[in-house]
Amino acid sequence: MVYIGIDVGGTGIQMGVVDENGHIITKGGIVTRTDIPVEEQIKAMADCALETLEKSGYTLDDLQSVGIGIPGIAEPGTGMVPFCTNLGWVNVPLKETFQKYINKPLFIDNDATVAGLAESVAGVSAGTHSSVFLTLGTGVGAGIVINGKVWSGFHGVGSEVGHMILELDGEPCSCGNRGCLERYTSATAIIRMAREAVAKHPESMIMTLCEGDPAKINAKMVFDAAREGDEQGKKVFRRYARYLGQAIANVINFLDPEVVVLGGGVSKAGSFLLDAVREETPKYCVYKAMPISRIELAELGPDAGIIGAAMLGL
Amino acid sequence: MVYIGIDVGGTGIQMGVVDENGHIITKGGIVTRTDIPVEEQIKAMADCALETLEKSGYTLDDLQSVGIGIPGIAEPGTGMVPFCTNLGWVNVPLKETFQKYINKPLFIDNDATVAGLAESVAGVSAGTHSSVFLTLGTGVGAGIVINGKVWSGFHGVGSEVGHMILELDGEPCSCGNRGCLERYTSATAIIRMAREAVAKHPESMIMTLCEGDPAKINAKMVFDAAREGDEQGKKVFRRYARYLGQAIANVINFLDPEVVVLGGGVSKAGSFLLDAVREETPKYCVYKAMPISRIELAELGPDAGIIGAAMLGL
Repeated sequence: MVYIGIDVGGTGIQMGVVDENGHIITKGGIVTRTDIPVEEQIKAMADCALETLEKSGYTLDDLQSVGIGIPGIAEPGTGMVPFCTNLGWVNVPLKETFQKYINKPLFIDNDATVAGLAESVAGVSAGTHSSVFLTLGTGVGAGIVINGKVWSGFHGVGSEVGHMILELDGEPCSCGNRGCLERYTSATAIIRMAREAVAKHPESMIMTLCEGDPAKINAKMVFDAAREGDEQGKKVFRRYARYLGQAIANVINFLDPEVVVLGGGVSKAGSFLLDAVREETPKYCVYKAMPISRIELAELGPDAGIIGAAMLGL
Repeated sequence: MVYIGIDVGGTGIQMGVVDENGHIITKGGIVTRTDIPVEEQIKAMADCALETLEKSGYTLDDLQSVGIGIPGIAEPGTGMVPFCTNLGWVNVPLKETFQKYINKPLFIDNDATVAGLAESVAGVSAGTHSSVFLTLGTGVGAGIVINGKVWSGFHGVGSEVGHMILELDGEPCSCGNRGCLERYTSATAIIRMAREAVAKHPESMIMTLCEGDPAKINAKMVFDAAREGDEQGKKVFRRYARYLGQAIANVINFLDPEVVVLGGGVSKAGSFLLDAVREETPKYCVYKAMPISRIELAELGPDAGIIGAAMLGL
């Protein structure tokens, strides 16, 4: 049997036929369109899924299930998508609509959750008792996997680690609250801190890397400057590593998973970031003499969304 | 079959013979002693357990298991207690020692976890999909129950909600970190805020209730003053309710349990507190239009520790 996994993103919808070990057999994809009715977008997804299945050499008889990862809220129980802001979806009956075209068991979940599941089936947290996956990008998403199963909470709104308060009355967040964890631990946070730093210290290497235009600063430039020994780069990097360590310690103090997995764009900084975060995190864990969760980098990269969505049907 | 539950506290050790529905058949108890070797203390616990069992009319043949709740870290897997600060226990092989006297299956866990389990078997969260129990006392402890089972994490150090950071570089905490959630949401936090308030506003009713001695202020006095319309009492109460709402929202945004249960001394404020917290919490939950966890008051009171410890063996 094979599984189809569909990773719905703001610009593209990637999909793949996946075996039971989480290996992608064949890939496909379409462009995300917000200028057509949702129904048509879902039909286009199903059409592409059928084509990808055909290309893989398997048939509908071989297809166990379809899984879809959504960059928004997914209700696994009902198959509804109450909100998906950057696709403009509101109360979309995704499961019901998709099954008109491919009548197989359909599973949906949040994209970060799905990526976490992928890592726990075929990646760095494979075979573990429990894991929390943090995707460090423009925002911070999370996926909780307990005993091999995704935990999305009772109402499907859990694992929103990025919007836990880390600082009372802190930085304003796009969600309307203040002091959300992602305001301190996302790529956006690195960029904000770097802009503040170069405003005061225009001699920083970060200014050279962004060609004198702070609007062009990205997380990689800051990490590159830090690696090269630039004072401002190092300061922002150390501050970021401390925030991320505090955020991870919050996850550990609450849930104590076997592994915390770091994914998303920021995690591409690799061992430079990992080493710093492994040093910071234990300082904020409540029991200093007890072992804590392993902290690891995600392994699967951009395919995690496809693999994890497929594995929802395992 | 019956179960023995033992609730180890800093001043007393309460225990009971409990049926499979979480009802206490017979109770017993001894004084906690830190002036004798741990082995002797554990033997005294076992002796009292045997007496209580005899009083209940049941025999060792009827006894399914013994459960012990510890005000410190318990390793459920090994039955070890790595730390229990207020008893002075360090690396105590509790299970192994206890089983010398009563050779039955023995389960141990943290006291807040155990109280949360009790509520989920015989209290307000009975029969729910998932719950997080918060004990609001001198500190803030928590118990996570998922699908009827206690979640203590991979290393047994989870559910330390009280030591999650709620404010970066915030109030110093007894654990050595700063800004821990319990610095804002415990009875101790209410007392601290009230002392600050009366220092500036000695005309407050809180001053009358504490007989002019701020060292005597407790949470009840502050709530009583607030109920009576005292300005400072209302201010501290509102500030506390907001902090607690933010803390509960953090729990919901992360884990999205079916129910959040409030226990511990502060929860005795009843519906006065509950109503305020139910109003504050949704403001800090990320998805405003989605249903959130029910917030309820604990029902079992001081017996929760005995019942929950017993139910570890279910």
